[in-house]
Amino acid sequence: MKLYELVGKDKTQGFSPYVWRSRMALAHKGCTVEMVPLIFTEIADVEGANAKTVPILEHNGTFITDSWNIACYLDEQFPDRPPLFNGAQGKAQANLFNNIFFYNLVVPLFPALVGDIFNVIDDRDRDYFRTSREARLGKSLEEAAAQQEDYLAQFRKQLWPYNQTLKAQDYFDGASPAYSDYIMYGLFQWAKGVSPCQLLNTDDPLHDWRARMDDLYDSLGKVIKPRG
Amino acid sequence: MKLYELVGKDKTQGFSPYVWRSRMALAHKGCTVEMVPLIFTEIADVEGANAKTVPILEHNGTFITDSWNIACYLDEQFPDRPPLFNGAQGKAQANLFNNIFFYNLVVPLFPALVGDIFNVIDDRDRDYFRTSREARLGKSLEEAAAQQEDYLAQFRKQLWPYNQTLKAQDYFDGASPAYSDYIMYGLFQWAKGVSPCQLLNTDDPLHDWRARMDDLYDSLGKVIKPRG
Repeated sequence: MKLYELVGKDKTQGFSPYVWRSRMALAHKGCTVEMVPLIFTEIADVEGANAKTVPILEHNGTFITDSWNIACYLDEQFPDRPPLFNGAQGKAQANLFNNIFFYNLVVPLFPALVGDIFNVIDDRDRDYFRTSREARLGKSLEEAAAQQEDYLAQFRKQLWPYNQTLKAQDYFDGASPAYSDYIMYGLFQWAKGVSPCQLLNTDDPLHDWRARMDDLYDSLGKVIKPRG
Repeated sequence: MKLYELVGKDKTQGFSPYVWRSRMALAHKGCTVEMVPLIFTEIADVEGANAKTVPILEHNGTFITDSWNIACYLDEQFPDRPPLFNGAQGKAQANLFNNIFFYNLVVPLFPALVGDIFNVIDDRDRDYFRTSREARLGKSLEEAAAQQEDYLAQFRKQLWPYNQTLKAQDYFDGASPAYSDYIMYGLFQWAKGVSPCQLLNTDDPLHDWRARMDDLYDSLGKVIKPRG
């Protein structure tokens, strides 16, 4: 198995939140995988994948694109290993969570991180990144970076229900981590991989949860080193 | 079984979103229940319940308060009937959804409805309701009512992930409704029971979902008549 991921100047610091979901999902299933680092402008060139984004999973000559499809594929291919989804109903609940998560956490965090991302990406990606992201933001990367604290404040307000949930249960999926936890963890790996900003207070239940997630699978997530 | 609910001047139009969760949950479990209408200022007087809010479920001399506790109780008491939660992991996912739902949908909708609620409640509740809700709002009921359209616009923005989810699955819990659907349905029953305002566009996937929810259990939810 190969998992194509996204990197910047440092090829060991893959920062895509969606790749991190798949990386944790593969570890959850006990799959060993070769990581293949790509920069943004190399993704479209992966022969046979027909992909615009990472993660891309290559398995027995088949390419699976999109982190959601990869999770579904892993549960289908390896039904005897620990499930990522709690059956069909659990998959539906995870899909609901995934959509809520995108809208309420990914979208608000993106403008807070975009200036930092620009600083870590490969020089060959800079034109592509500036053009595509400024169109999405409706402002320059520098204008977004100047408002980072405001964006972070907006983002942090959205953490209430997640901290609240972790007062009643150890993981978002209950007593042990599963795909909802990997969705959430990818967000923090993304921020950690590109920015010195602190998303959490040390007394947030999420802070303790993240430390426990960092310890999973031989501390897989700790390959990302804190910045700044 | 008795389910204590909240009503205003019209004792047939119970409008508590939390009672509606329990009402649908009881129907899901195939339980018949006697509804006991209360006004706000009668709730604390239910002997033996020690409750400040509805729903209150009375079963074999035991009182269970809080809609979440009632759902857990029903799955424990009636394990052979259709489950509300998909096991322990499903309950954890529903708890996560419940917290997100409260923060992103209930909290924004409350100020949009508060003026309309004041108009339907029993006269004996008016002083209590005004005092407690104005303290929560930080403004008068009339000021909140004057901003209803702004509040509704804020609320409707939050519906994106829910509409998006229903493009991929029939119910929030997958192929058939379960407790996450009843959480959501309670919100719409609340609004319908107190206000003529329209929360949804007719082409929203939520609009079709709500119509299917209205048809469940001999059209139980249609006991609430549209206002205005």
